[in-house]
Amino acid sequence: MKKLNVAQKLIQSHLLSGEMVPGEEIGLKIDHILQQDATGTLIMLELEKIGIKRVSAEVAVQYVDHNLLQTDFKNADDHLFLQSAAKKFGYWFSRPGNGISHVVHMERFGKPGKSMIGSDSHTCSAGSMGMLAIGAGGLDVATAAAGEPFYITMPKIFGVELTGELPDWVSAKDIVLEMLRRYDVKGGVGYIIEYFGEGVKTLSAWDRHVIANMGAELGATTSVFPSDDMTWVMLKQEDRGNDWQGITADEGAEYDKTDHIHLPDLVPLIAKPSSPGKVVPVYEVDGEPISQVVVGSSANPGLRDFWMVSEIVKGKDIPPEVSLDINPSSRQKIEDLSKMGAINVLMQAGARFHQTGCMGCIGMGQAPASNTISLRTMPRNFPGRSGTADDQVFLCSPETAAVSALFGKITNPKKYGKYMKYPKYEEPENASKNTFMLVPPAQKNESTELKKGPNIKSLPDFEAVEDSFKVPVALKMEDNISTDEILKAGAEVLPLRSNIEAISKYAYYVIDQGFFDKALKMKESDGGHVVVAGENYAQGSSREHAAIAPRYLGQKAVIAKSYARIGFQNLVNYGIVPFVFENPEDYDKINPGDILEFQFVWEAIRESKPALVVNKISGAEFPVVCKLTPQQKNLLLAGGLINFLRKRKK
Amino acid sequence: MKKLNVAQKLIQSHLLSGEMVPGEEIGLKIDHILQQDATGTLIMLELEKIGIKRVSAEVAVQYVDHNLLQTDFKNADDHLFLQSAAKKFGYWFSRPGNGISHVVHMERFGKPGKSMIGSDSHTCSAGSMGMLAIGAGGLDVATAAAGEPFYITMPKIFGVELTGELPDWVSAKDIVLEMLRRYDVKGGVGYIIEYFGEGVKTLSAWDRHVIANMGAELGATTSVFPSDDMTWVMLKQEDRGNDWQGITADEGAEYDKTDHIHLPDLVPLIAKPSSPGKVVPVYEVDGEPISQVVVGSSANPGLRDFWMVSEIVKGKDIPPEVSLDINPSSRQKIEDLSKMGAINVLMQAGARFHQTGCMGCIGMGQAPASNTISLRTMPRNFPGRSGTADDQVFLCSPETAAVSALFGKITNPKKYGKYMKYPKYEEPENASKNTFMLVPPAQKNESTELKKGPNIKSLPDFEAVEDSFKVPVALKMEDNISTDEILKAGAEVLPLRSNIEAISKYAYYVIDQGFFDKALKMKESDGGHVVVAGENYAQGSSREHAAIAPRYLGQKAVIAKSYARIGFQNLVNYGIVPFVFENPEDYDKINPGDILEFQFVWEAIRESKPALVVNKISGAEFPVVCKLTPQQKNLLLAGGLINFLRKRKK
Repeated sequence: MKKLNVAQKLIQSHLLSGEMVPGEEIGLKIDHILQQDATGTLIMLELEKIGIKRVSAEVAVQYVDHNLLQTDFKNADDHLFLQSAAKKFGYWFSRPGNGISHVVHMERFGKPGKSMIGSDSHTCSAGSMGMLAIGAGGLDVATAAAGEPFYITMPKIFGVELTGELPDWVSAKDIVLEMLRRYDVKGGVGYIIEYFGEGVKTLSAWDRHVIANMGAELGATTSVFPSDDMTWVMLKQEDRGNDWQGITADEGAEYDKTDHIHLPDLVPLIAKPSSPGKVVPVYEVDGEPISQVVVGSSANPGLRDFWMVSEIVKGKDIPPEVSLDINPSSRQKIEDLSKMGAINVLMQAGARFHQTGCMGCIGMGQAPASNTISLRTMPRNFPGRSGTADDQVFLCSPETAAVSALFGKITNPKKYGKYMKYPKYEEPENASKNTFMLVPPAQKNESTELKKGPNIKSLPDFEAVEDSFKVPVALKMEDNISTDEILKAGAEVLPLRSNIEAISKYAYYVIDQGFFDKALKMKESDGGHVVVAGENYAQGSSREHAAIAPRYLGQKAVIAKSYARIGFQNLVNYGIVPFVFENPEDYDKINPGDILEFQFVWEAIRESKPALVVNKISGAEFPVVCKLTPQQKNLLLAGGLINFLRKRKK
Repeated sequence: MKKLNVAQKLIQSHLLSGEMVPGEEIGLKIDHILQQDATGTLIMLELEKIGIKRVSAEVAVQYVDHNLLQTDFKNADDHLFLQSAAKKFGYWFSRPGNGISHVVHMERFGKPGKSMIGSDSHTCSAGSMGMLAIGAGGLDVATAAAGEPFYITMPKIFGVELTGELPDWVSAKDIVLEMLRRYDVKGGVGYIIEYFGEGVKTLSAWDRHVIANMGAELGATTSVFPSDDMTWVMLKQEDRGNDWQGITADEGAEYDKTDHIHLPDLVPLIAKPSSPGKVVPVYEVDGEPISQVVVGSSANPGLRDFWMVSEIVKGKDIPPEVSLDINPSSRQKIEDLSKMGAINVLMQAGARFHQTGCMGCIGMGQAPASNTISLRTMPRNFPGRSGTADDQVFLCSPETAAVSALFGKITNPKKYGKYMKYPKYEEPENASKNTFMLVPPAQKNESTELKKGPNIKSLPDFEAVEDSFKVPVALKMEDNISTDEILKAGAEVLPLRSNIEAISKYAYYVIDQGFFDKALKMKESDGGHVVVAGENYAQGSSREHAAIAPRYLGQKAVIAKSYARIGFQNLVNYGIVPFVFENPEDYDKINPGDILEFQFVWEAIRESKPALVVNKISGAEFPVVCKLTPQQKNLLLAGGLINFLRKRKK
């Protein structure tokens, strides 16, 4: 029998169709469903529109963690809507303020060996405990929740061997930052990253969470760790020892590609603005003054991470020009911090203690001041994502964050070794358990009415893809355009996610504030528009609004050099044709405002032949292609997944 | 010698000019200055515009408690601006997240016998500890901070005798709600309310804070309590026993008016939407379903209040349809709650724990869902103030809040006596002390530069009042128009408080969404506008933006049946003539859109003679008057206080 690595074992045990050959389409059985509020409202509206009665996954949880500011009725209305929808469709409901989805899922639901998809790009965090956990667009999640297979292109497996032990003042965050330093934000595209080797055994389940979480920033399909003693320790702390099973790679298992990190060689690292891939050693930016330090988020959610900060700042003052913001990751963690006395240690040092949730990581609060540096343990620092348009967000470990907070400037934490011994964390035997905000799935659910506040609108109808169309180029973009740029994140926009018409005003707003007006005009006069982009289009968050809002504004196609995986699928799911330049240099043959005629589009979709693009302004002609799996072809021709599923139901 | 009550003693010991005869203008020496962020940014801009070098009050503190959401750069920029201004002008700086101004001031600065003005209408809270503490408009605060007297009309003293002890399940909040039930939101206008009698001795300093705080809702100039053993207990807990002095009314001292509350007769009370004056017994609304309960704020800030909630919910679950939000009042209180284990008790019951600050009380977060009831221990429930336009906010005690949270509906807490004994609170010997976020005044300050982010704009210039003018009526309003309606509170507007042009878009927005456009048009075509109102115009918060923004939009005068005290002064300070109908029935002679010609305005201001108003549409004529103190006359004629002070400096 073939020797399998952990990723292959997880895939094999969930394979419903296709073969485990990289590039082939596979259909997977999905055990767990994870939804958060910012994407979940739309999923629930999709379930309603498709006409689904009850989710059939083993565990389906609707979390509320992204938007907790409640600056007006919209946010609170969304919470009530989600609660009613969770009841109607048979989900668990994790009440607002219960904690960050990835953290609570690991604490209370995650099981080694299970598969999960989630409408959040950091769903991959659960790879930390030997799960196959993949972030996806909302429609894919809705489809899987209804018991359909989850279709995906079989990724390659990238084995990363860890050896040795981390030195003092260096922690798990530095490992994943090292990966980002080596591979940048698209280095993981098309891969599952599997960590193996002796070094893995030195990392706790929560350390692994840090690394698996930011696999999203590498563009990886997901990351996986073996399920071993460390996994057991974590489950035992949660009184869930019975949920454990061991999963390790077969001896001699192979990878499509490998690399090696010798942990003792690592130094504290930091990602500079405004990409998680701009990683340098901390000492290169040592001394830059900072105005804010934020600790926590799904990228450093462990008790250890908060404890480390409290140990470092204990008995000292944070200088007045720095705001040290503590962003606890779950209620259990708050309880444990309170029991340990760490809350009061942090309070005494001048830290600000916030409610649990995603907070500033998704731009929902604690935006930094203009022209100042914010240092965060969060996973992302895309431009403007903090809520401040010209932000300067650096990403680092809790150690770097805490030591920098004390000095009021970016500081290599190793230098602090002169003043104190590196604190050694010991795992507590038990974690605080808190299940009071987890509402179990209703047994009787069908008659439940969805509670729709005035901002919650039904989905619009979309038409099928045309065989040929002629539309103007509304925007020409560079490489690595993130979904934050396609559809603004943050406090102003997030509350509009259950209202497609209202949210479409923010499409491409970060790049071009006049986009909405321009696109509407083009829709009226030319029947729609197309946009052009470089490599890795639609990277970042999984939000499908980055496809729906452009579609609503008349977007018929995108032509890019390449796409991020989830972003590509979302375009297909909403009936926007995701073309790729056959020759990347043709990118230069298009200017904003050009009129492009697309011909033979159906053939391009059905038979993977090139479609022809004629630039009606310059006269240039060039081929574009559309690489789709069989399932994607069906969806796209129908004008998207909702149309496809509704048609099938008839 | 005349026998004096506490209020008279406090006034006498600070009297710089005038006589203690009700209705006479008096000038007071001010010892303490309290500023919060929402009003403070403007005060600092005023100090800059006037050209002041350094505050001369004994204690001047700039707090940051109102806007802590930081949804974009503006909020964080304001914090840096305030910090730089505190340094430049010699203030203490209470860093963002340190706690609610009134609470921290009582913990760390307040002293019996001192006078204080503050740019927050709840400054009167410090009356709880035998201070003469008065809320005022920002310009008055700026003027007093610079060492000028604070001018005010000598109020009458309203003595309220408390006898007996509170029954179980009834607490301090019910006492002030009883006052509001009896006297409504303008029953205290023109009075200082002084509590005396045996019942006072049964109330802790923090209980008294609850009552003094909501004196603002009665429209009182302030409220005062004696400084006695209970005051000493509180100061001793704070290691400030030396700051204590006893202040009690002379035996046989008299009041201009008295009333009596026999505490054993009180029942749990509740204020219905949307006025703190709509008070009824809880049993009258028992059973109404609720979606939210918020505990804390400056109106129930004591450790006892949070502890009471934790005792009531201990070991129980809050039902899923209710969000129980804990709004801690200071860092010290958080530390004490953590030490007592109350944080974990609340966490286990499902409560959400927020950062310290004013939060939902000023519409900065935790807005309730549409068409649902929110139950709050906060001081105010003006329409839309919560952030939700059609909100239904009820105000009540912590006991009523906690018991209602458990049942998911408004519940008379007395009924809960069947299930548990009323918890008896014991004052701890010591409070947690936290001074790490209080930055002392800089010794060298003059060269400090003000840090102005892009949203912080210098103040516009305003012209002097004209002797006659002819302008249209932009708005005709009812009684009890609050500053929330004149200038919207909440998350959308608060961040614009250092930018007059931007914030003026929200003038009268709650009443008429088209006001801004209309007023601009009138300014251009007619040179300005006037508004008409009923009784108690400009009640509520002290924000002077409710005068500046209308003035910026061309408001020349208001004609009302009567005014709230701070609102009236703010109009004078910004050069808007606050006319009163000589005959209230003339209110009916004006319709929106009418053109009013004002004649003999200077004489009306200088000599308190009636000005003549001619309605150019109906032909009606009627007299209006303008009752001003000598100091107010000077200010108004100059076109406001800034013009006056700048002229004097020349």
